[in-house]
Amino acid sequence: MSRFLSPRYEKLSPYTPGEQPKTENLIKLNTNECPYPPSPGAMEVLTTKEISSLRLYPDPSATKLVEAIADYYGLEQNQIMVGNGSDEILAFCFMAFQNDERKIYYPDISYGFYPVYSSVFFAKGKAIPLDENLKINIDDYKNLAGTIIIANPNAPTGIALDPEEIEQILRSNKENLVIIDEAYIDFGGKSCVPLISAYDNLLIIQTFSKSRALAGARIGFAMGNTEIIQDLNRIKFSFNPYNMNRLSILAGAAAMRDVEYFEKCTGEIQKTREHFVRALKKLGFDVLPSSANFIFARNDKISGEAYYALLRKKNILVRHFNKKPIEDYVRITIGLPSDMETLLAVTEKILEGEK
Amino acid sequence: MSRFLSPRYEKLSPYTPGEQPKTENLIKLNTNECPYPPSPGAMEVLTTKEISSLRLYPDPSATKLVEAIADYYGLEQNQIMVGNGSDEILAFCFMAFQNDERKIYYPDISYGFYPVYSSVFFAKGKAIPLDENLKINIDDYKNLAGTIIIANPNAPTGIALDPEEIEQILRSNKENLVIIDEAYIDFGGKSCVPLISAYDNLLIIQTFSKSRALAGARIGFAMGNTEIIQDLNRIKFSFNPYNMNRLSILAGAAAMRDVEYFEKCTGEIQKTREHFVRALKKLGFDVLPSSANFIFARNDKISGEAYYALLRKKNILVRHFNKKPIEDYVRITIGLPSDMETLLAVTEKILEGEK
Repeated sequence: MSRFLSPRYEKLSPYTPGEQPKTENLIKLNTNECPYPPSPGAMEVLTTKEISSLRLYPDPSATKLVEAIADYYGLEQNQIMVGNGSDEILAFCFMAFQNDERKIYYPDISYGFYPVYSSVFFAKGKAIPLDENLKINIDDYKNLAGTIIIANPNAPTGIALDPEEIEQILRSNKENLVIIDEAYIDFGGKSCVPLISAYDNLLIIQTFSKSRALAGARIGFAMGNTEIIQDLNRIKFSFNPYNMNRLSILAGAAAMRDVEYFEKCTGEIQKTREHFVRALKKLGFDVLPSSANFIFARNDKISGEAYYALLRKKNILVRHFNKKPIEDYVRITIGLPSDMETLLAVTEKILEGEK
Repeated sequence: MSRFLSPRYEKLSPYTPGEQPKTENLIKLNTNECPYPPSPGAMEVLTTKEISSLRLYPDPSATKLVEAIADYYGLEQNQIMVGNGSDEILAFCFMAFQNDERKIYYPDISYGFYPVYSSVFFAKGKAIPLDENLKINIDDYKNLAGTIIIANPNAPTGIALDPEEIEQILRSNKENLVIIDEAYIDFGGKSCVPLISAYDNLLIIQTFSKSRALAGARIGFAMGNTEIIQDLNRIKFSFNPYNMNRLSILAGAAAMRDVEYFEKCTGEIQKTREHFVRALKKLGFDVLPSSANFIFARNDKISGEAYYALLRKKNILVRHFNKKPIEDYVRITIGLPSDMETLLAVTEKILEGEK
């Protein structure tokens, strides 16, 4: 810490991202990336000519990308804004809508960045406990006095709420902004996008990092009524107007328009997940019902920490959170079918006592 | 504005970036981009394999890029951090080092984003007037009580300070952070990087958007003592840990290592500038002494606004700032020699009265 750091940040504790190892011989199932490459269309648009055009600034409005999202979801362009990953959009939300007098509610077990944003932007973060089955109890989110942010499906549990349940939250919080973080919505959950026309207090955030296989291109987006989107753009243009890489605007637009490939990949991942969950259960695991591209599981025979460490020794990387009440679990990304077969074989040996 | 916007931002006035037109038949001399393509090495590293790897998250520490910068400047890796353009780094600086009790001083005519950051992060921004020749008077920056940020060369004037002058500012402000924004340093100015080892209150910010022909890849970087860099990383990891595009990390590293191409391009631009300035002066223009890849000029025969508008009609885009005392000037990016010839020919006709 330098003597110049603002005293208000002396105790700031940053987010810890999942490990991004530099070796290539790992089966990487720890940060919920897509096991399939980006859409062929997304790769084809990155021509030599476009790469050469990197000398030029991007379009600050990222119009091509916004258009593609608008077309896919049947929204107007002014109902959409894009960011350098959904994390940047989340940060802009905390800047725009929070301050030290406003509360923001989120589940106590959820995306670990929500409390970090609360602290970096001095919002009054309020963590609401999950129920004993690690589910969100929607009654806890009714008639609150502050912003609400819910990941749907939730992470790291993978459990989804129905739009009808979220609608109850929206209806009972008309004067509160309700942010639904749909990072994992494309793997079996139901999006709340159709609710945007009915609820002007709804903001939906999605990402290209999971279902659209472009984590490295850093693309997130927000969808909501035009006034909320204007607010977010006011922050963006006061923070980093050129926030989107030129190539990401092109690749993102092409990926969004390649509906067939998207449906094929997300369908395959769901098939792999169902198969993998059945196999894990046969090995004695408790597995939460996942609507995401990961599962959250535990086994009475081994602690989450030990299982994580033994997999690591065999070059398989999963994620363990050393936090109650989820310290018994590991989160496993759904990779290629062959990745999951390898993991199952290694797991069997681990359960048989091999170190 | 939605009813959810934090009241503190109701009057926030965002930065206005230079126009990024979507048509391609313009001579674009308005946002100081490089007229030459990125380094061939930077383009070659963006292979199909790397593009396919966009499915994976980037390295949050962007090690390859940081290494290349460290090697070029002879610094340690922990003296460097990278961001999604230098704007993001500037924003992180205001977050880390300012608050509503700390002043930050900058020239009244300089990069227009400094006052915007002051307002978005509630810093006490203090604009210090340039002298009557539109130069920074270094005596105005001695023994201040707050952070100092100076663009060197300054924009939009293009006038550079010598490191010896900046050293006087550093020496008389030992308890203040001094940020030198070297976005345009590679076109004839002298960098303050050699001062980092002697002054722990110095932070230097540079960008790949100008001299390294990668504006579309969004790469900025900061250099300073390790504690200041730690502070900036604390903010980055609390805001957007994956702030760098995978392809930008690779392309940026390759561009930084291609010293020969870099020197050739920046040398050509300086040659074009000198030739262009001589020609402008022959046409009766006053031209400020530029160490940047743009010039700032005025002509008694025509207002800045009218000259800008007439060039625009001829498909030549330059930048005009409708602000005293610089409203008589236009800022012209140094493009290809042929671009400058076209601009000169059009200018001659404009001065002869052609509309």
